[in-house]
Amino acid sequence: MTYCVGLLLDAGMVCLSDTRTNAGLDNIATYRKMFHFEEPGERVITIMTAGSLSVTQTTIARLREAVEDPEATPESSIMKAPTLLKVADIVGHMLATVRREVDEKLSAMNQGASASMIVAGQRAGGAMRLFLIYPEGNYIEATEDTPFLQIGEHKYGKPILDRVVRRTTSLADAQKAVLLSMDSTLRSNLSVGMPLDMCVIEKDACRVTQQRRIEAGDEQFRAMSEAWSRTLRDGFTQISI
Amino acid sequence: MTYCVGLLLDAGMVCLSDTRTNAGLDNIATYRKMFHFEEPGERVITIMTAGSLSVTQTTIARLREAVEDPEATPESSIMKAPTLLKVADIVGHMLATVRREVDEKLSAMNQGASASMIVAGQRAGGAMRLFLIYPEGNYIEATEDTPFLQIGEHKYGKPILDRVVRRTTSLADAQKAVLLSMDSTLRSNLSVGMPLDMCVIEKDACRVTQQRRIEAGDEQFRAMSEAWSRTLRDGFTQISI
Repeated sequence: MTYCVGLLLDAGMVCLSDTRTNAGLDNIATYRKMFHFEEPGERVITIMTAGSLSVTQTTIARLREAVEDPEATPESSIMKAPTLLKVADIVGHMLATVRREVDEKLSAMNQGASASMIVAGQRAGGAMRLFLIYPEGNYIEATEDTPFLQIGEHKYGKPILDRVVRRTTSLADAQKAVLLSMDSTLRSNLSVGMPLDMCVIEKDACRVTQQRRIEAGDEQFRAMSEAWSRTLRDGFTQISI
Repeated sequence: MTYCVGLLLDAGMVCLSDTRTNAGLDNIATYRKMFHFEEPGERVITIMTAGSLSVTQTTIARLREAVEDPEATPESSIMKAPTLLKVADIVGHMLATVRREVDEKLSAMNQGASASMIVAGQRAGGAMRLFLIYPEGNYIEATEDTPFLQIGEHKYGKPILDRVVRRTTSLADAQKAVLLSMDSTLRSNLSVGMPLDMCVIEKDACRVTQQRRIEAGDEQFRAMSEAWSRTLRDGFTQISI
């Protein structure tokens, strides 16, 4: 499985994904699930993926092919699309097409393939936008009231986000929030695993402002995780019922 | 949906369930999901239910009928079964039978019905035991390493249990832990709702030692929930990344 989360805040956007892929619990591998498409200053698009690897890899590869195609049009390339809404359309259409193709191949074996994606982006002159693309290609968008979107194993890490993330949350606090949300997920579900990919897209920068890969032994992450456990245990001890 | 959790500790067992039932989001009702079968001093069995109400109600009603039947045998009545393992067998068999019956009725409409249960109990001279019964009637049991079992919307409330519940946890702390686990679930998922039913079965008492219904306006629960939110927010502020 997977856990990816994207935050849309006044100050910018923060994305975090894990990297664990498995086909059965005995076949575990590490694959990147966060992909950047960037023309710094003009446009930035970050896509995170969850679901069947054959669907997500093919979708990302075809999106990239369409971008690099010398005959790319605003209808085909997410780097030429006139709006972020159009970007979500192109990604949704590609995802649904690939999913159907893979599904047809698998249907002979009574299996199905599914995938969903988070698309975060901004183009010069436009607003920052954050979408969740469903396997069928339709999508929803983060709003003032719901400033975060999650895909994959999203439930373990939702309570902490519900409690601390607001549209006005700073980018530093936002990174802390998504890391603690991931930490809870890692602890409670073996199918989500390190390393992690995190990025920050500051408002109006139209580029990936910060990028960080957090490896399994990362000292800073471990310290944060332990401090959080201590906070929870101490807090738990002090609360009375 | 539902959230029920059972803890098996050195000092006893703690069970907590919500009461929300819905058939579609516009058809919400309150139904008890925790049922006690008790012959104080000789045997106590607490059953919690999740899933299709028509399956769980019928299963509980038939189990009760079998107990009250003047010709009840150790094979048919959970109050006469020689061991708790046999109790789990009887409940599992009844659940699977009812589920199949209801499933057949619904299959004409391309719908299915499913349900799962938690069974906690002890009989005089035996050990306390805690089972999770699957829709097919098979089951797993809580052990030293995994002292809690959950059914329904279990993911939101798992991180806090993973962090604080050990076999040696006191019954007071255990009640706090399940209530905070429920609190996280209530906040993150609208389909789980107050009031709550909580019970404590002290070791070797072979009866329900404490029972409490927590209503929506419960002052004590609200205070605990707010204190916990404060703890999390303060802790979040203090942690550095």
